[in-house]
Amino acid sequence: MSAAVAYRCELAWLPAGRLASDVVIEVADGRITSIGPGPTGAGAGPAASEVRTEYLAGLVLPGLANAHSHVFHRALRGTTEQGRGTFWTWRDRMYELAAVLDPDSLHALARMTYAEMALAGVTTVGEFHYLHHQRDGRAYADPNAMAEAVLAAARDAGVRCTLLDTCYLAGGFGEPTSGVQRRFSDRDAASWAARVEELQQRYARATDVVIGAAIHSVRAVPVPELPVISAWAAAHQVPLHAHVSEQPDENAACLAATGRTPVRLLADSGVLGPRTWAVHATHLTDADVTDLADSGAGVCLCPTTEAALADGIGPAARLREADVPVSLGTDSHASIDLFAEARRAEWDQRLSTGQRGHLDTEALLAALAPEGQASLGVADAGRLAAGARADLVAVDLGSVRTAGADPETAAASVVFGASAADVTDVIVDGRRIVRDREHRDGDVGRGLATAIAAVRGEAQR
Amino acid sequence: MSAAVAYRCELAWLPAGRLASDVVIEVADGRITSIGPGPTGAGAGPAASEVRTEYLAGLVLPGLANAHSHVFHRALRGTTEQGRGTFWTWRDRMYELAAVLDPDSLHALARMTYAEMALAGVTTVGEFHYLHHQRDGRAYADPNAMAEAVLAAARDAGVRCTLLDTCYLAGGFGEPTSGVQRRFSDRDAASWAARVEELQQRYARATDVVIGAAIHSVRAVPVPELPVISAWAAAHQVPLHAHVSEQPDENAACLAATGRTPVRLLADSGVLGPRTWAVHATHLTDADVTDLADSGAGVCLCPTTEAALADGIGPAARLREADVPVSLGTDSHASIDLFAEARRAEWDQRLSTGQRGHLDTEALLAALAPEGQASLGVADAGRLAAGARADLVAVDLGSVRTAGADPETAAASVVFGASAADVTDVIVDGRRIVRDREHRDGDVGRGLATAIAAVRGEAQR
Repeated sequence: MSAAVAYRCELAWLPAGRLASDVVIEVADGRITSIGPGPTGAGAGPAASEVRTEYLAGLVLPGLANAHSHVFHRALRGTTEQGRGTFWTWRDRMYELAAVLDPDSLHALARMTYAEMALAGVTTVGEFHYLHHQRDGRAYADPNAMAEAVLAAARDAGVRCTLLDTCYLAGGFGEPTSGVQRRFSDRDAASWAARVEELQQRYARATDVVIGAAIHSVRAVPVPELPVISAWAAAHQVPLHAHVSEQPDENAACLAATGRTPVRLLADSGVLGPRTWAVHATHLTDADVTDLADSGAGVCLCPTTEAALADGIGPAARLREADVPVSLGTDSHASIDLFAEARRAEWDQRLSTGQRGHLDTEALLAALAPEGQASLGVADAGRLAAGARADLVAVDLGSVRTAGADPETAAASVVFGASAADVTDVIVDGRRIVRDREHRDGDVGRGLATAIAAVRGEAQR
Repeated sequence: MSAAVAYRCELAWLPAGRLASDVVIEVADGRITSIGPGPTGAGAGPAASEVRTEYLAGLVLPGLANAHSHVFHRALRGTTEQGRGTFWTWRDRMYELAAVLDPDSLHALARMTYAEMALAGVTTVGEFHYLHHQRDGRAYADPNAMAEAVLAAARDAGVRCTLLDTCYLAGGFGEPTSGVQRRFSDRDAASWAARVEELQQRYARATDVVIGAAIHSVRAVPVPELPVISAWAAAHQVPLHAHVSEQPDENAACLAATGRTPVRLLADSGVLGPRTWAVHATHLTDADVTDLADSGAGVCLCPTTEAALADGIGPAARLREADVPVSLGTDSHASIDLFAEARRAEWDQRLSTGQRGHLDTEALLAALAPEGQASLGVADAGRLAAGARADLVAVDLGSVRTAGADPETAAASVVFGASAADVTDVIVDGRRIVRDREHRDGDVGRGLATAIAAVRGEAQR
């Protein structure tokens, strides 16, 4: 049982989008035990004398969720920007990197990348993990060695991880896997389920890990195998994610092979439901939006990646009008800045519609925190409320980027003006992992450089 | 005559996009006097013993130009993001602010906003200045009092300013100015020219100030007045900027009133030429692109503002194919981060085309530095070369954002990965104004907060 701490917050973002000044949040055993006005406030706050008090300046948010990550892509940042091409030529570069990673190099890279996320205010990462097997496609001695590397990295970095263990069986409709894709494949969904079931049992009692499921895409999982995956996720009541309609080519191939859009195919296969999250969902028909809404499924937008990979602007405004929940992810990690993702989600809607005001500050913070955490199966995080997990993220309101924020507009100043560099303090499940912009592991930039140099050296060998 | 200094740079971006390690740049009297390999290099660098040497870690770039600024908009950041609306409803909020500024409050706000720019690596700002007169439209005792406030602010912040003194005479085609627009109007172009001529003479010998000209837009300057402005700019050989085709409504109104697009109207009026820069140029016909290319005019893109104000994605790729020079600006200052502007310029092209690789790293750095500086009439800046102005901007290659950069990819890592927060040191005309991420004026965030609170208080009175 950890000692109680009271965090006195200059300003806090409370449920229902309410901003309050001078808020005391009392924490014990990793949870918020009470929340109320500070000693100078009118109400009865916690008795400050009984617990240690720490002050958090700026705007305190609940923990942010990075709902879609391919952690090893961090090593590509800056290297794939030259030359012409498409999503598919980018994928060739990404595959070269995927081909060389092993549990040790993946652990080192992931640990530092998750630390970069921690510095950006992320308390749960959703790792869409498909790099399962050895370079020749054979299983490691522990068939979950790569997943274990990812999970250990998150623990080392101090963030929770929802490992979305990804089923990847085919190189396209009716095509076998080839090349590096052999590392991704479990051969069939039953084998995938057996492997992930074993992993799930290892972490059944963990409070900082969720083992969820993912369908890589309708390209990568044959239709008859889809129900196996959704049945496994349903049996464990865990999230089920899937890349959906990221590229027009995927829609065209799906229509040609099945006569249906990817969303309709997933709906018909029983995959959609309240724990299902469609990642990207960039190229949707109106009927697709209705199918998602009717099923209770959510959508994870990755706006920076969707721009950098030339995917297109997704239908965030239409999804919002249909009450489809939205989460946000940094995906390829061209940048790890959740505030930048949030404002790009809104600003890109403005580009595609000529109108302002689709996803407002409250909607974007909901996507970053409660909806994002829920999308990763951590429903008790993402809110500053008694009983919730004690995730606190303090954002500087006095930097050159945020200066000018006042108590009424501070949330908008952060969502539309702050960068990840403005996150000063991060507490996850009651444990402080970032203080004064420093991660508890020290120089994360240096750690990243070392880890990236190692995997790039391996890739060039 | 200032003492010579040798800056030893870990890595430097040299002309023609060449990256070189361990470069010594010798500076005297505000200019680069020599540039060559460091003592460990093969060539003959400057003799280090004769001059004081300072080390600049990271990637050293030439000075960046922020080619389009409305400095007072900085006070709007975070306040205009709520609610629905369009560009035009945003303009109502901006006008409320414009109504209350006076030379003192404009100076205070501009000084700190230019310091924010300095921290982002900006060495020249192009201030598109139309807030000329008193609240009731009468001239100040000094008719250039507001321009002087802006120029003093830039000097205080240590950046050069190209004041694009803006002619604004009408509230629309055939409409008089109204409300706050009376502050903008000189009644006719001849009066505008007389006022700006007087200002120009005051700064004729200044090396840190250029008095240029601007046509607010075809909406705001009647066609017969246009040649007066271009004649004045031509007589002084200074830049002439104009907002062009930012909104479809402007194109529609121009077509209705004149039968021509804004670009064609400007071409027919003799406004276009090698010193003319069209700002935004978002909604261009192919003929407009040809007109710009044929005249030698450039285009200043402001990608973040064009997203935030729901303008649309401009034709950057088509402009590049037509060899139209491009510069970049932060315009409304929703964000002041030139690297973010640069990558948005490219990434937004990917969104509109589905293809990657339109504006590559070299093209984007050219837009930020040599072309940007040239667009502001400072042709001898923006290059690390002997004889050029001694503007040096060092960017950290070891932050969590840039870590992984290597000597081959460092420029791409900066343009596509860095933020303004990664700028560590800035030297303008040989004077250091930023050291270790600190502006010589100290806490710029605090200064911004004070200046913004003052003008917002005035606006609410």
